[in-house]
Amino acid sequence: MTFQPHLFHPRVLAPNPEARRPILQILEAALAAVDPHQAVAAHLKRQDGLLQVGEGRYALDDYRRLLVLGAGKAGAPMAQAVESILGDRIAQGLVVVKEGYAAPTERVTLVEAGHPVPDERGVAAGRRVLALAQDAGPDDLALVLISGGGSALLVAPAPGLTLADLQAMNRLLLACGATIQEINTLRKHCSAVKGGQLARALYPATAITLVLSDVVGSPLDVIASGPTVPDPSTWADAWAVVERYGLADKLPPAVVTRLLTGLRGEIPDTPKPGDPIFEKVRTLIVGENRVAALAALAEARKLGYSSLLLTTFLEGEAREVGGFLAALGKEVQASGHPLTPPACLVLGGESTVTLGQSPGKGGRNQEAALAAALALEGTAGIHVACLATDGTDGPTDGAGGLVDGSTLARGRALGLDGEAHLRRHDAYPFLEAVGDLLVTGPTRTNVNDLLLVLVEEK
Amino acid sequence: MTFQPHLFHPRVLAPNPEARRPILQILEAALAAVDPHQAVAAHLKRQDGLLQVGEGRYALDDYRRLLVLGAGKAGAPMAQAVESILGDRIAQGLVVVKEGYAAPTERVTLVEAGHPVPDERGVAAGRRVLALAQDAGPDDLALVLISGGGSALLVAPAPGLTLADLQAMNRLLLACGATIQEINTLRKHCSAVKGGQLARALYPATAITLVLSDVVGSPLDVIASGPTVPDPSTWADAWAVVERYGLADKLPPAVVTRLLTGLRGEIPDTPKPGDPIFEKVRTLIVGENRVAALAALAEARKLGYSSLLLTTFLEGEAREVGGFLAALGKEVQASGHPLTPPACLVLGGESTVTLGQSPGKGGRNQEAALAAALALEGTAGIHVACLATDGTDGPTDGAGGLVDGSTLARGRALGLDGEAHLRRHDAYPFLEAVGDLLVTGPTRTNVNDLLLVLVEEK
Repeated sequence: MTFQPHLFHPRVLAPNPEARRPILQILEAALAAVDPHQAVAAHLKRQDGLLQVGEGRYALDDYRRLLVLGAGKAGAPMAQAVESILGDRIAQGLVVVKEGYAAPTERVTLVEAGHPVPDERGVAAGRRVLALAQDAGPDDLALVLISGGGSALLVAPAPGLTLADLQAMNRLLLACGATIQEINTLRKHCSAVKGGQLARALYPATAITLVLSDVVGSPLDVIASGPTVPDPSTWADAWAVVERYGLADKLPPAVVTRLLTGLRGEIPDTPKPGDPIFEKVRTLIVGENRVAALAALAEARKLGYSSLLLTTFLEGEAREVGGFLAALGKEVQASGHPLTPPACLVLGGESTVTLGQSPGKGGRNQEAALAAALALEGTAGIHVACLATDGTDGPTDGAGGLVDGSTLARGRALGLDGEAHLRRHDAYPFLEAVGDLLVTGPTRTNVNDLLLVLVEEK
Repeated sequence: MTFQPHLFHPRVLAPNPEARRPILQILEAALAAVDPHQAVAAHLKRQDGLLQVGEGRYALDDYRRLLVLGAGKAGAPMAQAVESILGDRIAQGLVVVKEGYAAPTERVTLVEAGHPVPDERGVAAGRRVLALAQDAGPDDLALVLISGGGSALLVAPAPGLTLADLQAMNRLLLACGATIQEINTLRKHCSAVKGGQLARALYPATAITLVLSDVVGSPLDVIASGPTVPDPSTWADAWAVVERYGLADKLPPAVVTRLLTGLRGEIPDTPKPGDPIFEKVRTLIVGENRVAALAALAEARKLGYSSLLLTTFLEGEAREVGGFLAALGKEVQASGHPLTPPACLVLGGESTVTLGQSPGKGGRNQEAALAAALALEGTAGIHVACLATDGTDGPTDGAGGLVDGSTLARGRALGLDGEAHLRRHDAYPFLEAVGDLLVTGPTRTNVNDLLLVLVEEK
């Protein structure tokens, strides 16, 4: 075979080159399918002055101006893709990207801002994006490019609030144990852009939102805090969170004042489902976990593996996910269920790691992979790959792990105790030492995690 | 439909009778397939003086005596099944069952002993079983009936040890965090019957061991501590456990003396793979998790559901297992992967619950079901069932749970907070109140847990 992985560090081939090429090739195909440039370009069709986006058709000459707005870590390749197709038509554009993520563009201005902690650059950018949106008229067409990280990058404190207020609120919310839904409800109600408010600013312009989803299940009101989609949450919901966690005395006074004023009906709520402003907005998911998973499925079948996509909703504790993957592989080998080997099972989602005291170096996919390796110890012919599609698994330069039934033994031969590494959340050094660390570098995309179980023919 | 569940408490039908009948019927079929009487009878074929067991054929007239030995919670129905087929041929028999689990038999004596904590009745029974085995000659045929609980029920302290020694050792091992493999290694080396030693006592008689497996993956050396199969573990392994957990000063002196004497080669080790005594032993699994799972699969297909068996190796934290099941159901509904609805996914294994302080009332299957209900909240048409096949889920009279996307809301309507119940491991009262508690009563079998995800057609 002449296959050489483009993205993966060659060291991950070393432990078992022949056996590892197929699974790496499947991962490569999955990543290619969710490359932001590719994903946007595949969904924008232009022919004879007609722009087709999903089911929607737009005669370009009907519009006075074409605007490009947006925010997210994939903003640069998404903007480049739009320029490659519609460049001559773009009147103006502003997309906020993470610091260090800008790239050359021609018509669309890319501005960098802080991520994951929002900063004043994000505030300034948010103000400019909102101004452009408010300036759009009924005969303008806006393309809104949304990807992961957009919530932190596109910051627009609501009137009366400062960035410091929002930061203090975020810290409190993260510390009190509020769910991500609860946190988002408060964020939306303290923002001038989140929760459909960018759509309100754009109205009465026509808008097309292209979304690269980094949230499991792709709930549109959650991705980048849903700037152009209806927000089901209300002032009452927001205040209920404050009460549930006893935050009334801890939040910045300006936040409390705003929420109470809203609760009294004196500030308009975020736009709700059914609001007529959304009649002029079309939203299309151009990339998400399922796109990557289906591409993996197709590639696995192309390589001759019986294959199934089991879920893209997998969440939960990373080490438990690893055990689950191993349990699937063992059954394929033991009984040929759900598929006869050679077989490949594809799963997606995003796990979490509950850290104990003084954790080591690792990430959720490395931890899941190491847990799978423990459960697979002594088996042969079962491979498990866990990959963060953005190439950054936890606070490391690793993207995940690729393990099999020999992983633990290879560690022992180097004097490493896999179980102890897992216990202290220290998967990185173990996987790196045995050659089972996946390293891709930044992939420019993020559609959560991809998990593969590949079982060789006996 | 005229279907009425035989085993399940009618209350579990109430919340949604039409929708719940199929999944209950599938569970019923699975339980029927692993009924111990059925399972044994299905594997013993007698015709014209010939006994066929799996691939083995035995001319009954070739044997002087037919003996029946065994231990385990399913001992009574297994013995009854043997009697129903070979009753006239049985010369003598002794099977140890759990207190309260005896039933009328004709030729085979059933004796009751303590479980899960072994007692002197188990010691006396172990002595009698060993004596019968040692008495067997080259022209005798022994049927050995093994099921879950056999390890505690068939107690035979090795020479020099007492029941109190074994009990003290068990307490230490459970408290120090040793794995079940490590515990078994020590148990086998302190027993006169475990780890293949019953086979050694039977030799040179011919033996057929029929196993109803209650261990995930059915490792024969683990089920009931493998009295008739080779034991890969050695004196050195046993001593390594003592050292690993620093038990040398804590174990009863007689145990330490025995282990050190064995380590010096002065006591024969348990019989190892390849030992010629095993040439006269045939072992057959008559019931295990996969048998139940495949029966569920067949019944689901019969009822018109596209179905797959995903694994019988599922282990891990119960609430995480519940999350996985929900993730599978959501994908079926969202994308038709891995199957188009109406669909049923079948999984098996056995989860665990890591209890916090002052836990409430529940069991692993109830906890998994409640966790699934949380993840399914607001969905419609996705059912998740988690069932302990022995009918006893944790220290409760519940067998598990059957939940859907309305479970949480039905609890709220009664003033119950499902999330809080899950947090304090208190699933039983929640599930009972909303009608989602599975109650079967004792099923006489145990092949771990069965987990079903059923997704209705849209």
